[in-house]
Amino acid sequence: MSQGAFPFRKVAILGTGLMGGSLAGALKSLPLPPETVGTTRNPEDRRLALERGWIDRFEEDNAAAVSGADLVVLAVPPRAIPEVWREIAGTRSSAAVVTDLASVKGSLYETYRSAFREALPLYVSSHPMAGSEKTGIAEARATLFSGRTVFLTPFSGETASIGKLSDLWEILGARTVPVSASDHDGIVAHISHLPHVLAYCLLDLAEKVRRENRYPGFDWRSQKGGSFSDILRIARSSPDLWADIFSQNRTILLDAIDRFDQELGILREILQKGEEDSLLRLLSEWTHPLSGGGAP
Amino acid sequence: MSQGAFPFRKVAILGTGLMGGSLAGALKSLPLPPETVGTTRNPEDRRLALERGWIDRFEEDNAAAVSGADLVVLAVPPRAIPEVWREIAGTRSSAAVVTDLASVKGSLYETYRSAFREALPLYVSSHPMAGSEKTGIAEARATLFSGRTVFLTPFSGETASIGKLSDLWEILGARTVPVSASDHDGIVAHISHLPHVLAYCLLDLAEKVRRENRYPGFDWRSQKGGSFSDILRIARSSPDLWADIFSQNRTILLDAIDRFDQELGILREILQKGEEDSLLRLLSEWTHPLSGGGAP
Repeated sequence: MSQGAFPFRKVAILGTGLMGGSLAGALKSLPLPPETVGTTRNPEDRRLALERGWIDRFEEDNAAAVSGADLVVLAVPPRAIPEVWREIAGTRSSAAVVTDLASVKGSLYETYRSAFREALPLYVSSHPMAGSEKTGIAEARATLFSGRTVFLTPFSGETASIGKLSDLWEILGARTVPVSASDHDGIVAHISHLPHVLAYCLLDLAEKVRRENRYPGFDWRSQKGGSFSDILRIARSSPDLWADIFSQNRTILLDAIDRFDQELGILREILQKGEEDSLLRLLSEWTHPLSGGGAP
Repeated sequence: MSQGAFPFRKVAILGTGLMGGSLAGALKSLPLPPETVGTTRNPEDRRLALERGWIDRFEEDNAAAVSGADLVVLAVPPRAIPEVWREIAGTRSSAAVVTDLASVKGSLYETYRSAFREALPLYVSSHPMAGSEKTGIAEARATLFSGRTVFLTPFSGETASIGKLSDLWEILGARTVPVSASDHDGIVAHISHLPHVLAYCLLDLAEKVRRENRYPGFDWRSQKGGSFSDILRIARSSPDLWADIFSQNRTILLDAIDRFDQELGILREILQKGEEDSLLRLLSEWTHPLSGGGAP
């Protein structure tokens, strides 16, 4: 954890669901917590955020909420971000550091560079690897970011705001990793978007097999073991959010799917040959990095 | 839970790792526990099983352990089962009900029908959907089977032993589902073997991407979020056990992989078209069964 002093005094959190709500809770757990102002369209999130003391005050619109804030956090779905930029760009928030918590960066970065660079000059995009299939502040936890990686992608050129945001996340117990927008999207295509693609596909396959009644009495809902339960947890993630994320990371994700298909092809070929020894060698090699080593 | 009396008085558990050990623990948690005799090659499993009082006595060989038992449970890896059948087939255990806990049934069933039908006439194969990536009795829990499904596949023709085994599992809190060997292998190909295939492939892809250093600073080991952590938990399963399982279920698993590839193709095609609305419709339709309904 960083030893630096907390770098912000008034934080506007636009969107107080799982991620924004957890951030508000984490901020209010600090010894000297900043003031927090929020916006949300969800009356229940609003009620709980106030009841827990995580948000000091809600405003009706985003422009009002960012007034006087030295940090603005957009905790809304990726596709809603440019619209929120528009709403706050006209305010006197240009001295504030601005961030978002979006899971995909490339297309936002393009939009920012072409239209919001001057209105929001201190912009560093954040991605805490701490989401889940859950939504809403009811599921939020003040410790959500502890021990997690937060990718930091500077959208504007200047560096002071990167240091401040890095301090913020490290004070909350996270590790920060600076990364370009395109590298970010490549990384998360493999360790976040692809797991979701696979989970959705496997869920649909299991349901198709069930509906075909090919195996009488089969029902994945009651008969699942540990591995399928894990897959289902991933597949419980919001289709609306993930259609947004997949679409925004389309090109890179398609490439990752192709590479995944190659891996599947390797395993399939060995399986087809029916050589158990070769299969065991392959699985041992593939799982070797789990024991802490790199390549075997 | 069944109201029936516990149908066995002396249970031989051949192999006291995670599954066999948990079964021993579950049996010893009953109000009137049966006598338990075990075998294992692992001195630590043996020590812990005795220390916990889960196994009353260990024997050096399987033939000695089954002597006088009215239930024999083979809790060894699938590939080791025929050899254990050979060891116990010559004993006077033909009055005992015999079961195993193997994750794959088809090839065992063929071997049984061709060579062990007469020596082990009361045979019902069990598959508790309760395994995990863990191994050894140190990870075993007496409650492992509670709330889980146990598939029951009768290998011999008679029915009395099916009822007894069904009673046993239900007394331990599980739900039993009778299923043929080939239907069993089709079901688990989709809800257990395929998740493991996908997890192994995704782990290797992530490691390849890391080694290529295509995204400087990328390391899935420290940067993983919830979904990749779940995938890794599945991929931590023993390569030795899973090479065995995949090989024994080769034909059906190859078919399941092909069908999975079709699902991936559907998602890929919509992603390629770049229509977010169509993608959202697809994901909503695919995840609809999670909300309790069947097809949308």
